[in-house]
Amino acid sequence: MKDCNGRDALDCLLSPRSIAIVGVSSDFNKLNGRVMKFLLEKGYNGKIFPVNPKYEEVGGHRCFAAIGDIGEAPELAVISVPAKVVPEQLEAAGKAGVRAVIVFSSGFGEMGEEGLEKERQVVEIARRHGMRLCGPNTLGVINAFEGAFATFTQYGMGSTNPGPVGFVTQSGAFGTAIAALARKRGLGLGYFANTGNETDVTFADCLGRIVEDPRITTLAGYIEGITDGPGFVSVARRAMELGKPLVVTKVGRTASGARAASSHTGALAGEDAVFDGIARQHGVIRARNEEHMLDIVDMSTTTACPAGRGVGIVTQSGGAGVLMSDRAEEVGLNVPQLSEETVARLRDILPAFGAAGNPVDVTAQFIADPSMLKESVKAVLDDPNVHVAAVWLQLMDGFVDTLTRTFRELKEETDKPFVVSWVAAPEEGLRALRELGICALRGAEPTIDAIAALVDWEEARQARLADTAAPSDPPALPAPGPGFVPTEKSVSLLHDAGVPVARVGLATTCEQAIEHAERIGWPVALKIESPDILHKTEIGGVEIGLKDAESLRAAYERITGRAAKAAPQARIDGVIVQEMGSGTVEMVIGLRRDPGFGPVVMVGMGGILIEVQKDVVFNRAPVTEAEASRMLDKLKGKVMLDGVRGAPPVDRAALCRMISAVSRFGAASADWLEELDLNPVLAGPDGVIAVDCLLISEN
Amino acid sequence: MKDCNGRDALDCLLSPRSIAIVGVSSDFNKLNGRVMKFLLEKGYNGKIFPVNPKYEEVGGHRCFAAIGDIGEAPELAVISVPAKVVPEQLEAAGKAGVRAVIVFSSGFGEMGEEGLEKERQVVEIARRHGMRLCGPNTLGVINAFEGAFATFTQYGMGSTNPGPVGFVTQSGAFGTAIAALARKRGLGLGYFANTGNETDVTFADCLGRIVEDPRITTLAGYIEGITDGPGFVSVARRAMELGKPLVVTKVGRTASGARAASSHTGALAGEDAVFDGIARQHGVIRARNEEHMLDIVDMSTTTACPAGRGVGIVTQSGGAGVLMSDRAEEVGLNVPQLSEETVARLRDILPAFGAAGNPVDVTAQFIADPSMLKESVKAVLDDPNVHVAAVWLQLMDGFVDTLTRTFRELKEETDKPFVVSWVAAPEEGLRALRELGICALRGAEPTIDAIAALVDWEEARQARLADTAAPSDPPALPAPGPGFVPTEKSVSLLHDAGVPVARVGLATTCEQAIEHAERIGWPVALKIESPDILHKTEIGGVEIGLKDAESLRAAYERITGRAAKAAPQARIDGVIVQEMGSGTVEMVIGLRRDPGFGPVVMVGMGGILIEVQKDVVFNRAPVTEAEASRMLDKLKGKVMLDGVRGAPPVDRAALCRMISAVSRFGAASADWLEELDLNPVLAGPDGVIAVDCLLISEN
Repeated sequence: MKDCNGRDALDCLLSPRSIAIVGVSSDFNKLNGRVMKFLLEKGYNGKIFPVNPKYEEVGGHRCFAAIGDIGEAPELAVISVPAKVVPEQLEAAGKAGVRAVIVFSSGFGEMGEEGLEKERQVVEIARRHGMRLCGPNTLGVINAFEGAFATFTQYGMGSTNPGPVGFVTQSGAFGTAIAALARKRGLGLGYFANTGNETDVTFADCLGRIVEDPRITTLAGYIEGITDGPGFVSVARRAMELGKPLVVTKVGRTASGARAASSHTGALAGEDAVFDGIARQHGVIRARNEEHMLDIVDMSTTTACPAGRGVGIVTQSGGAGVLMSDRAEEVGLNVPQLSEETVARLRDILPAFGAAGNPVDVTAQFIADPSMLKESVKAVLDDPNVHVAAVWLQLMDGFVDTLTRTFRELKEETDKPFVVSWVAAPEEGLRALRELGICALRGAEPTIDAIAALVDWEEARQARLADTAAPSDPPALPAPGPGFVPTEKSVSLLHDAGVPVARVGLATTCEQAIEHAERIGWPVALKIESPDILHKTEIGGVEIGLKDAESLRAAYERITGRAAKAAPQARIDGVIVQEMGSGTVEMVIGLRRDPGFGPVVMVGMGGILIEVQKDVVFNRAPVTEAEASRMLDKLKGKVMLDGVRGAPPVDRAALCRMISAVSRFGAASADWLEELDLNPVLAGPDGVIAVDCLLISEN
Repeated sequence: MKDCNGRDALDCLLSPRSIAIVGVSSDFNKLNGRVMKFLLEKGYNGKIFPVNPKYEEVGGHRCFAAIGDIGEAPELAVISVPAKVVPEQLEAAGKAGVRAVIVFSSGFGEMGEEGLEKERQVVEIARRHGMRLCGPNTLGVINAFEGAFATFTQYGMGSTNPGPVGFVTQSGAFGTAIAALARKRGLGLGYFANTGNETDVTFADCLGRIVEDPRITTLAGYIEGITDGPGFVSVARRAMELGKPLVVTKVGRTASGARAASSHTGALAGEDAVFDGIARQHGVIRARNEEHMLDIVDMSTTTACPAGRGVGIVTQSGGAGVLMSDRAEEVGLNVPQLSEETVARLRDILPAFGAAGNPVDVTAQFIADPSMLKESVKAVLDDPNVHVAAVWLQLMDGFVDTLTRTFRELKEETDKPFVVSWVAAPEEGLRALRELGICALRGAEPTIDAIAALVDWEEARQARLADTAAPSDPPALPAPGPGFVPTEKSVSLLHDAGVPVARVGLATTCEQAIEHAERIGWPVALKIESPDILHKTEIGGVEIGLKDAESLRAAYERITGRAAKAAPQARIDGVIVQEMGSGTVEMVIGLRRDPGFGPVVMVGMGGILIEVQKDVVFNRAPVTEAEASRMLDKLKGKVMLDGVRGAPPVDRAALCRMISAVSRFGAASADWLEELDLNPVLAGPDGVIAVDCLLISEN
């Protein structure tokens, strides 16, 4: 809801025109004195209202006994009082007309059931008064452009120049460390926001506002678990539309990490592979760790995205060139052969013992003649197969001025992007390049990794821009009732949704099974049908390739006999007769419901590959056929789809249609679907078909 | 050859008692003035003999017109003259009785054929005079303990405190950068050696001498390609015996990198996977890049090797704990649940909102009460499932003294190792911990990675110590003649070597084939036999599962017909009749000859897995059965061997026996074997058998 100035509560949180500090201390060394100290030091240009009955005045500002005494409504109130008095202070803030509150106090959801109850209470108060609530258990929010340091983070101590990076973190301590690392690199943060327990304002809420600020060109995030999936996807989409890379570190990528995360945040984290798939689906750059994230952010704030995967490498060390080539290949870039013309040009530039290939080795000679370095990089960048140059240097104490001049000229004289990889660099060298808007990273591999991340991002962005057939959410399907959905019903639902599934019939007698087989056509498979036996193969409840009535009869007896023996208590609905399919590659396709993102579609390689490597990709449902195709591209086993050992390629278009159809079914059944497993799906040169299906409904 | 003082030429290179500098400059800013400058500055305690007819005196030392004028034999001569006069200076050095020479000059092997000829010439001169030659094209050698800086590396500028690390590098520029990075961390290098073109003294020669120095506890290396495989293996073995970790970065791990490396060094690099396998086989720690290497070196110089894989994580940030748990799982460590006793103890120590699990979150409260941190780490280390603690901190400007005291006490009060991961640390904090002999790294993941590397190393070392059945080299087998070895002969050789291969017979008529089948037992396989058709399947030259004479006759006609059509020029020796094997898992076993390491044995997963992921492991032949078993453990698809989808486990002992037998065959045929492919090898619960074999001989 916007006020008469067109400002809503999130504006008041992230760009407040006035701030009340409830529970302020006049001792600026104390945590609840820090906000005041920061606001004064950082030149906050809005109004400051200290609130604490103990003081008349704090930091030269009149101090109020209660927030209601101020006489006007502060846009933002920072609450820095013990947990037990937070509710009354919130009430007071609400009554005073405050629009947004930040609650520093801990002792809420992170403390178990009792804390959760207190948390529900404070959220209720905030909602009732129409206030947005950041926290509790947060370090607060910084808008560095406006000097609005509504925070007690240690990062606030020391210089905090505003810059083009908007950073939102779910962790206070780790987020502070990342912000400090950014400062060490000379990277300016325009925003720093810690969302704490996310009882109201989420990670996506903050980023969604920050992405719109034209002073921000790059977004960075530290994530422990996404609770607001749709919000996250919206921000990702918007960032892509605006051409602003969103780079995140998300922890909890392994079972150990997820266990640690859930004990840490108390929140139910969705499966990491789901986040990973959806992030990539929407062009979010996922960094391995904080340094990797900052490398990418660093490059993106200074350097144009390369227009392709060709990297020209120029070094003063053959070995570094090899290491960069290695890494480039590993991360999907290429180190193209240079054209004859480029090589000839390089030969004229370089000393006889230099190397004019790619990587180019200018040798230590360039120290005597810096133009050799500049001209080499220019020659490489002029090569049509090169889209970005990576220049490797080491040490160079005493040559910083020369190098700075060289790189300044290089920047003026070239159009394509280049990045400097400077190992054991003198600090003043890195600073000088940053001032010129040139990206300098500290190692060969980090440089190549940052390039690859931005190239991937640009490709994802182009693919999404080209993908005009955005899938519309299909109309909702009625719930089939809770639990196991009978196979005939599942197959019928899937057929209606355009998903190719082998035809089935339920038989309660052997003769009925034979009738189904005659209708479906021999050979057929028989499978025990029971809501209590979901893993039919394990109890010998499946027989395939039955060619005639005789073999069917024998199989029928065996299957029902084994089921009765293995699961005497199970309700047996009968036996499913199923059409046999064929294909050259086994796959799995399925649907899951993620707690943060809702229905997600999964595609993976089946057969033994799923045993050896969990080779699956998730996307948020629904997906277009183009998105489905990009999912397939991310499978490690994708080479199988093209046909190996003389096998023909599978009908990829049909596979993509099927994935898209399954995903639309997932979106239509979002209200009730718990899980769908099509395993195996047989893909062949003439089409695709699921030959087993298991559908579970929540209601 | 040792002299009367018991010193050989490598001692004279790496620990010279006197150094002549041939081509010295009195201008210490010039490259050929640097050695003199360094020797004076670094307090070299041996004799210095400048040699240059231009000067009477350099740096206070009498300068000689020629090396022969000195009147005594310098142990080491550094040659810093243009390439074309290197030979005459080498002759003079030889005549003067010099034991070792370092040739800085470039313009040799790295310059193509002409340079190679010059290189052969200088090597010949050195050999003739019994001198060991380091270079040419090298930055030289440092023994920092003795101030012997026989080098012009930029690393020599600035402080170079000797320390427990011996570092050998094949790259000058990259090696200099790594040395500078080590200095930035406060890591002391006792030795720095750049081997340049390795015409005589190799990487392994240098390390082999350095490993024996008791002042050295850790070895580090930068490798572009190993030319002296046996030497490398000896050093690796010796380092393990002495309990000194050897950590290397090797570039050229991808095709792009290998291409770049071969154009850079001019040397034929062996396959990277071969190096990788052999390095792990001998306990060499392979780091991804320079920072990863230095992290491991850093930890190993201060911290005892953990006795197991259990990591206790103590942080001030839940998020960092999650990231470390993630990484621990990814690199094969575990983050064990703590005992009830430990948890109870932690609950007493921590604030209510801390986390007493593993990871432990002490929260920012520990700043007020540092004993909370110390006692938490102690509690975690006392847990029987924890073998090492990782403590994560950030920033802490202003708290360095407190933390230093805390960690000093912690070190005194615990026996198990711990490592500090300190993000955005104040420099003085890192320095203080280093002075206490406590390892502090700069990030969560680097810390976990370093721990994992040392745990892996210790395990490899223990395994090797336990592996008493070191394989002896079997007696050499006579060469079977160059090229394709006929299948009957190959199978017979392999049978004699104890390798289980399906029985075969060569038939030149259909009736003869039936006779073989009767002898071998039905069913059989038929395969075209021709030295010109090595990929038989591709031309339809294989049929399997032939159950009787009738089907064999038909298959015989088809196979010979297809071969005649597909390869009309091919010499056809007949048709091989082969016993059919059975198994549950397809594997490949083979032998290769590596240019640096000689015969190597390869094991991999077969079938479609080899198409999707190149899942193979190499070791140097011969290997023991225990080594074979460790090779299997490194396969990504190893889970297949235990039986998936209800399949029984394969006979792993038989598989290991087979691998060992193949490897001994490789060692016995080292003089002539080019390649052996057993593909597929069928492994099942009742044994293993190769059902196809291809053996190629060089002579």
